[in-house]
Amino acid sequence: MSKRIPSYSEIVEAHKRIEPFVHRTPVLTSQSINTICQSQIWFKCENLQKVGAFKFRGAINAVLSLTQDQLRKGVATHSSGNHAQALALAAKMNGTSAYIVMPDNSPEVKKNAVAGYGAEITYCKPTLQDREETIEKVLKETGATFIHPYDDARIICGQGTAARELLEVQADLDLVMAPVGGGGLLSGTAISTKAINNKIAVIAAEPKGADDAYRSFKSGEWVPSEKPQTIADGLLTSVGELNFQIIQNYVDDIYTVSEESIVETMQLVWERMKIIIEPSSAVPLAAVMENPAVFRAKRIGIIFSGGNVDLTSLHF
Amino acid sequence: MSKRIPSYSEIVEAHKRIEPFVHRTPVLTSQSINTICQSQIWFKCENLQKVGAFKFRGAINAVLSLTQDQLRKGVATHSSGNHAQALALAAKMNGTSAYIVMPDNSPEVKKNAVAGYGAEITYCKPTLQDREETIEKVLKETGATFIHPYDDARIICGQGTAARELLEVQADLDLVMAPVGGGGLLSGTAISTKAINNKIAVIAAEPKGADDAYRSFKSGEWVPSEKPQTIADGLLTSVGELNFQIIQNYVDDIYTVSEESIVETMQLVWERMKIIIEPSSAVPLAAVMENPAVFRAKRIGIIFSGGNVDLTSLHF
Repeated sequence: MSKRIPSYSEIVEAHKRIEPFVHRTPVLTSQSINTICQSQIWFKCENLQKVGAFKFRGAINAVLSLTQDQLRKGVATHSSGNHAQALALAAKMNGTSAYIVMPDNSPEVKKNAVAGYGAEITYCKPTLQDREETIEKVLKETGATFIHPYDDARIICGQGTAARELLEVQADLDLVMAPVGGGGLLSGTAISTKAINNKIAVIAAEPKGADDAYRSFKSGEWVPSEKPQTIADGLLTSVGELNFQIIQNYVDDIYTVSEESIVETMQLVWERMKIIIEPSSAVPLAAVMENPAVFRAKRIGIIFSGGNVDLTSLHF
Repeated sequence: MSKRIPSYSEIVEAHKRIEPFVHRTPVLTSQSINTICQSQIWFKCENLQKVGAFKFRGAINAVLSLTQDQLRKGVATHSSGNHAQALALAAKMNGTSAYIVMPDNSPEVKKNAVAGYGAEITYCKPTLQDREETIEKVLKETGATFIHPYDDARIICGQGTAARELLEVQADLDLVMAPVGGGGLLSGTAISTKAINNKIAVIAAEPKGADDAYRSFKSGEWVPSEKPQTIADGLLTSVGELNFQIIQNYVDDIYTVSEESIVETMQLVWERMKIIIEPSSAVPLAAVMENPAVFRAKRIGIIFSGGNVDLTSLHF
């Protein structure tokens, strides 16, 4: 069964709906990174979005799309992090409950953040089976509406507003890049970008150690993410069904990058741009750094997906 | 001998001059910090300025104000960090030389950055006397124009453009805050703010361990910074002569803060705002946190002065 791909006009509608609630994040440039890459890059800083990630756009769009009756019963999801925080805040801002199923091995910083937004957390074992069983139980008990982290048109439309804002600031681009995990950000980015100017290439980037989107895209056949190994903990999951359809239709290419270049790129951004990005955010720029022949002299838009890093281990 | 206080129209001129060269840095807000402080704060992010500090505004204004003959011979200064980097980049962008006298105990990250911008560094001992002798020698040998880090009208006018941009974004403020070291940022901020709306209070903040500006301001008599002890290494120096005149005329109050609250505030900003600020930047927000009765329910503009922190010791 194939789900319906949302249209760009639905992203425009979502944008109108969420604008009073989201940060219009800045688009930053770095002369020193441009010099290193021999290209011109505009970074859309969703690490500076509420809850520190683009995920808030989709979550608030989903909550604002509920009926009054649905809103009263609350929302629920399973997520190891940013989507959980985003949904928790979106629910809180709308005076309703968020029920979050999280693996019990999630980073402390993410557990605390979700709890800090007033969500009700139910821990599960970090297995697909226990997660599914736990969320089913929560949904049955609460009557809450399930909001999938990425395989959901409302979520995809919310995420697509980031690329729209990027292109409002800088329309003259050769390509737009986003990381791909479940594919929510990438599919929203692709719909927006191609609708605004279909000459702009949409390029995704993924860790080599979690390259299911790359393999699915190249083979034309969906393959799951099995035993992914990467520091980019936002990109561990398999690409969603609807997301894969959109990727096949609108994405021009996917690059994979090494763990070393993810870490080096993240450090470079912290040092040169004075902003905190999480490893997942560094993946597209890492692809630019690894493939100078491809990206040299290009005008590139990159979406920094998030900035949620556990800082408690740092020494100040 | 009293120097002439620059007028706001000179800041407007400086703004026109430097606009093509500087980043228009974003003004960010954080709901969670607003909640903690029970106030509304707009942060002007000069940590995201070129060279990672507001200092670039003054430096590029000074270089752009030189005659052709002066420009050929280059510029020189003594600085332990951000001003040195700023002047080095400003000189490089204008095709001239920067001669920088730095204490040999400056942080590696700052030495490397200054060298990276192509400046010629001469190291001195970290004493006032050796610094003065070394800069005299450099000026004599090169014919370069000396650009003081803060006690200079061109520098003050450049720094005053940050508050101007902040007030363009958010005019409806009760007070504007900046840290005070030499007083370049504070005096430029004060001239701009009072000219734009003299009902807005201008409040400075300073580490308790380097409270010469506080003591000078309260006593009405300039006192030097002697054996300052603070993690806020941008605020160690004594207030400049011209800067002190401006502070006496335009600044409403100065608060001092503890080292503990500087570190805690810096961590809070990294964690909640996903931006890297250096300890000096955290000082005004630390004053807000330490004095809830004073700042509660106020509309506050804060200038984050810089983001140059040595990240090499962090584990990624």
